[in-house]
Amino acid sequence: MSDPLKDERFMRRALELAQRAWGQTHPNPMVGAVIVEDGEIVAEGWHHAAGQAHAEIEAIRALGRKPAGGATIYVTLEPCSTCGRTGACTDAIVAAGFAAVVVGAQDPNPAHAGRGLAILREAGITVTSGVLAQECADLNLIFNHWITQNTPLLAAKMALTLDGKFAAASGHSRWVTGELARADVMRWRRYFPAIAVGANTVLHDNPSLTSRIGEQVWCPQRFVFDRSLKTLALESLPKLYSDAHAARTVVLCAESAPQELQRRAANAGIPLWVLPVVEGHLDWQAFRARCIEAEIYGVYVEVGPTLATRVLEAELVDYLFVYQAPKLISDAASVGIGSLRNTQTMEQVWTLSDLRRANLGNDHLIRGFLTT
Amino acid sequence: MSDPLKDERFMRRALELAQRAWGQTHPNPMVGAVIVEDGEIVAEGWHHAAGQAHAEIEAIRALGRKPAGGATIYVTLEPCSTCGRTGACTDAIVAAGFAAVVVGAQDPNPAHAGRGLAILREAGITVTSGVLAQECADLNLIFNHWITQNTPLLAAKMALTLDGKFAAASGHSRWVTGELARADVMRWRRYFPAIAVGANTVLHDNPSLTSRIGEQVWCPQRFVFDRSLKTLALESLPKLYSDAHAARTVVLCAESAPQELQRRAANAGIPLWVLPVVEGHLDWQAFRARCIEAEIYGVYVEVGPTLATRVLEAELVDYLFVYQAPKLISDAASVGIGSLRNTQTMEQVWTLSDLRRANLGNDHLIRGFLTT
Repeated sequence: MSDPLKDERFMRRALELAQRAWGQTHPNPMVGAVIVEDGEIVAEGWHHAAGQAHAEIEAIRALGRKPAGGATIYVTLEPCSTCGRTGACTDAIVAAGFAAVVVGAQDPNPAHAGRGLAILREAGITVTSGVLAQECADLNLIFNHWITQNTPLLAAKMALTLDGKFAAASGHSRWVTGELARADVMRWRRYFPAIAVGANTVLHDNPSLTSRIGEQVWCPQRFVFDRSLKTLALESLPKLYSDAHAARTVVLCAESAPQELQRRAANAGIPLWVLPVVEGHLDWQAFRARCIEAEIYGVYVEVGPTLATRVLEAELVDYLFVYQAPKLISDAASVGIGSLRNTQTMEQVWTLSDLRRANLGNDHLIRGFLTT
Repeated sequence: MSDPLKDERFMRRALELAQRAWGQTHPNPMVGAVIVEDGEIVAEGWHHAAGQAHAEIEAIRALGRKPAGGATIYVTLEPCSTCGRTGACTDAIVAAGFAAVVVGAQDPNPAHAGRGLAILREAGITVTSGVLAQECADLNLIFNHWITQNTPLLAAKMALTLDGKFAAASGHSRWVTGELARADVMRWRRYFPAIAVGANTVLHDNPSLTSRIGEQVWCPQRFVFDRSLKTLALESLPKLYSDAHAARTVVLCAESAPQELQRRAANAGIPLWVLPVVEGHLDWQAFRARCIEAEIYGVYVEVGPTLATRVLEAELVDYLFVYQAPKLISDAASVGIGSLRNTQTMEQVWTLSDLRRANLGNDHLIRGFLTT
């Protein structure tokens, strides 16, 4: 018999293991596994990176022997029944002789969901699924979105006061949120394979867009939305184009961007993605297509007020991260979100769904899918 | 020896008991008590209303006999050492022969804090204090503020989207938040002895400002801030001046309000509090003074955008309740908070301190003291 409290405890450990590869498994999901004999964890494994063994195989290898009779394997994600190079995990679990399998999230691929569980059940294994299912699924926002929607997960991140402001009227914005919230941004920068900002952010803040966690510095793929290449017109190039990770920066611009600035980018070794322009704006559908070509399935877009308004009103992003400080600037001239779109009723709002919330010191993160 | 987990469990029960008198003990605090013998609750009590017995006395009476040797009494608030009519609770506890007393919050009165505990210790009783201290103190926001500041707790309540908007550009605002958040507002309307709104809210929403919880309807003291008595110029009187609770409504106006409208109020039996006008606005210091005269120590001010801006920028309120829907209206013409005060840096914000947060369905309540 399965014991819900024990199951949650072991699944929580498997989740911890999965997260050791935070941001390192793209385009694969993060997955963790533990093997339990007689109420004790005897082996652990997690998926380290694409091309490497799946979590279940890692755990079985770590055990280094046949599991004892009655052994259970806990996996945060439904075992695959159609793996590539390493063979199906369901086969390995059956071959190892486990008595029971406890699963967190179902395979998000509707064509596969439940198939791994069915194969295990047919082999006479006791299967429990859905243990910490929400948390296990939430771990793989990018993978789940890609598998089900066939488009990259584009997520916008913003930091606001309670009255919805990005900055003082002067533009001064250091800082809206506190240290813990800013450290959490670093975590999400590490999670996403790519980060994007608008040209105004580059001109205003000259950010590095690296993820800095303790001593570790990680540079994701960096994108700058800059239709007219105004960030390349600066006398000295901003950090994104001149630091040690400059090769990881791509500028998204229009064909109409000044030739001289396009040449300057080429000379500095900064690749340009020339995108079509639709109604005066770079075409994000074309951006999505280029991301797919480049096998980039998630982009964390750090938005200021202009880009925030644009991504919302044109519904360019799938997901929102809103950091909120318990502050009120109370200045009508401070920048917030929104153009003059002449809303008539509260039905004309965008809503966040599948909400997740976290308190970060005195600040608060609310995140979810953008729905209309 | 005191067991922290057990102490919390019993204190939580005492808190539940205290809350049975939610909003009914003004100007006294809500207090709950339980008597524990041998790990079992054998008697319970709570303070029902001002003039009635204190919680400890209620619990001792409910026990109806001497407590057993080794009995402990749990009280959410430090027992008084200088009670009025009913005698000091510390005396009653000593006389009853308790072996131990476990206390939640300390007496907020700096002149008394810790005195009750000292008296009990001197009598040889084992005293533990600070169990669920924050929750026990939070229960009595109004009482604590009055005792320490000698001014009523004025609290502003607002409902906002994530981008800080009260309504669509048209003014349509039904509803920003969902049912659970609106039910929570009813709870706070029951908590405060008085509710206030601005004239615009009366003209726009014609609210009743009663607390409706299940079948129970409660009408607090109702205030309308209406300098020029424009809410009395309507052809048919709004609910606040004509419903069954009209006698509980007071209108706050300036001496310059039209005589004809002042007469109309008198004819309708609606009392006016004529307040001085300072820089074009009713003087809230005078309002506080009138509240003290009337022994009203807490006012829940339900603000729309105009009053929200005013109470923030003139720092008229002590406390804020911000209900937040996970929605973005993204319309620059939608009303938010703030005038053109030309903020230069993020240091010019108001911050909420001593934060409390609650999730109410998909909505979120953040509340705290307004600090500059």
